[in-house]
Amino acid sequence: MSADPRLSRLSINSKTVDGWSLPELVDGVAAAGLQAVGLWREPVTDHGLDRAAKLVRDAGLRVSSLCRGGFLTAIEPAARAAAIEDNRRAIDEAATLGTDTLVMVVGGLPKGSRDLVGARERVADALAELAPYAGERGVRLALEALHPMYCADRAVLSTLGQALDLAEPFPPAQVGVVVDTFHIWWDPEVWRSIERAGERIASFQVCDFLVPIPADVLLARGYMGDGVIDLPPFVAAVEAAGWRGDVEVEIFNADVWAQPGDQVVQTVVQRYLDVVVPG
Amino acid sequence: MSADPRLSRLSINSKTVDGWSLPELVDGVAAAGLQAVGLWREPVTDHGLDRAAKLVRDAGLRVSSLCRGGFLTAIEPAARAAAIEDNRRAIDEAATLGTDTLVMVVGGLPKGSRDLVGARERVADALAELAPYAGERGVRLALEALHPMYCADRAVLSTLGQALDLAEPFPPAQVGVVVDTFHIWWDPEVWRSIERAGERIASFQVCDFLVPIPADVLLARGYMGDGVIDLPPFVAAVEAAGWRGDVEVEIFNADVWAQPGDQVVQTVVQRYLDVVVPG
Repeated sequence: MSADPRLSRLSINSKTVDGWSLPELVDGVAAAGLQAVGLWREPVTDHGLDRAAKLVRDAGLRVSSLCRGGFLTAIEPAARAAAIEDNRRAIDEAATLGTDTLVMVVGGLPKGSRDLVGARERVADALAELAPYAGERGVRLALEALHPMYCADRAVLSTLGQALDLAEPFPPAQVGVVVDTFHIWWDPEVWRSIERAGERIASFQVCDFLVPIPADVLLARGYMGDGVIDLPPFVAAVEAAGWRGDVEVEIFNADVWAQPGDQVVQTVVQRYLDVVVPG
Repeated sequence: MSADPRLSRLSINSKTVDGWSLPELVDGVAAAGLQAVGLWREPVTDHGLDRAAKLVRDAGLRVSSLCRGGFLTAIEPAARAAAIEDNRRAIDEAATLGTDTLVMVVGGLPKGSRDLVGARERVADALAELAPYAGERGVRLALEALHPMYCADRAVLSTLGQALDLAEPFPPAQVGVVVDTFHIWWDPEVWRSIERAGERIASFQVCDFLVPIPADVLLARGYMGDGVIDLPPFVAAVEAAGWRGDVEVEIFNADVWAQPGDQVVQTVVQRYLDVVVPG
């Protein structure tokens, strides 16, 4: 097929077609004429890291990001050390896969803790340990602000502005930020923050925010156009801030996951053209 | 009963004991040795406005706030005019009830609209119409930032900082802000914003944020101590900012609503003493 030139930067995250194995993903994405995938660690591990790297490389695909490192809020020294170690592995995996972007979901409040300030400080401390390690391997830690509804149990990092503050002490080549429309669309400071982000932007993810929010709040993501986010202004804003990388579509949604993978990819492609980069 | 002096500023919002009529609420709250209630418009209307005002006054109770005005984002002129008119009525009701505080839930995106910036502008425009009217009647419009998970369908006002920006053009006697722990606990800017709020603070509401979030996200509020919020720092912060008014407990929760009203009030009182103002 002769692909629309606008598709040259569209990347499909493996979580969007959760039912596919890595080979199915690589085949399906390449067949759709796309050039990039975002990968979660699980399908990579399932296939074997080196084999996964070769599979993606041989298919001529870029890896726009690896998801995910993070979960850096543990209090107990052993749990904290294990988290640092796991993040080092994730950095190594990113390097092996040939991506310079490791998405970081920083973690929520430890069970039973209400110390949000302390949790945020521990994230900053852990980043100081991980950032040089990442930089040496050509990998950038991409801090992902998650929607505040996930603050307690997923990520104490809740706004793009906060992510930029957290990234500030580190060189942009070591620590960047994710701009994910789902998580930050509501933020009254979002346009100022994207402009401020500039070269810190390490990943641009799009999907829509569904209303009403489904019973499992983790699955409130939808195809672009099915929710409440006005997406083209985000494309324009990250471009104005200097972003020239991929536009990755990551959707967690029970209905989407129930559809055949090829249909999901086809829908993502169509919605991307119609809703995200129209005209 | 001889009440703990710390209870002199505790107010129970009528929504917390949703099953009670206004007379039941007034009796129950007074019997618990409390001095204040927060009222929703519905039980007031059910009882009749003037009778409600007399009932509360005769019981010696303060009305810490009236909930709620707002819903100011409509696009069509007729709907917009109706909203303004309804808000004028709410202001009049607040004045009749003897409270100087009308809580404002500003409204979400109009159905089918994705224009968040436009919705926020319409809120500002409507406030300019309503603020002088409120001020003339001794009522302050208390802008309530709602948790960002309600941005699309309840309130495009999502942070305390945004509420303060929106209030800025008006005299503090006309437009203030609500500090509601449930909605703003996650905000990395919250301490700076409370300090900045100062005399703009028009209402202080407390309850806890439950995790996991229940299927109906509107019912994620819980008794203080049942969720993830560290409450005493919020009490200290509003006091440091100058707040000397009531501490209103507003809980939407299906399990709480299923309990007998007296038990709910008793639990609120105990949790207030143990968790909100301990020691």
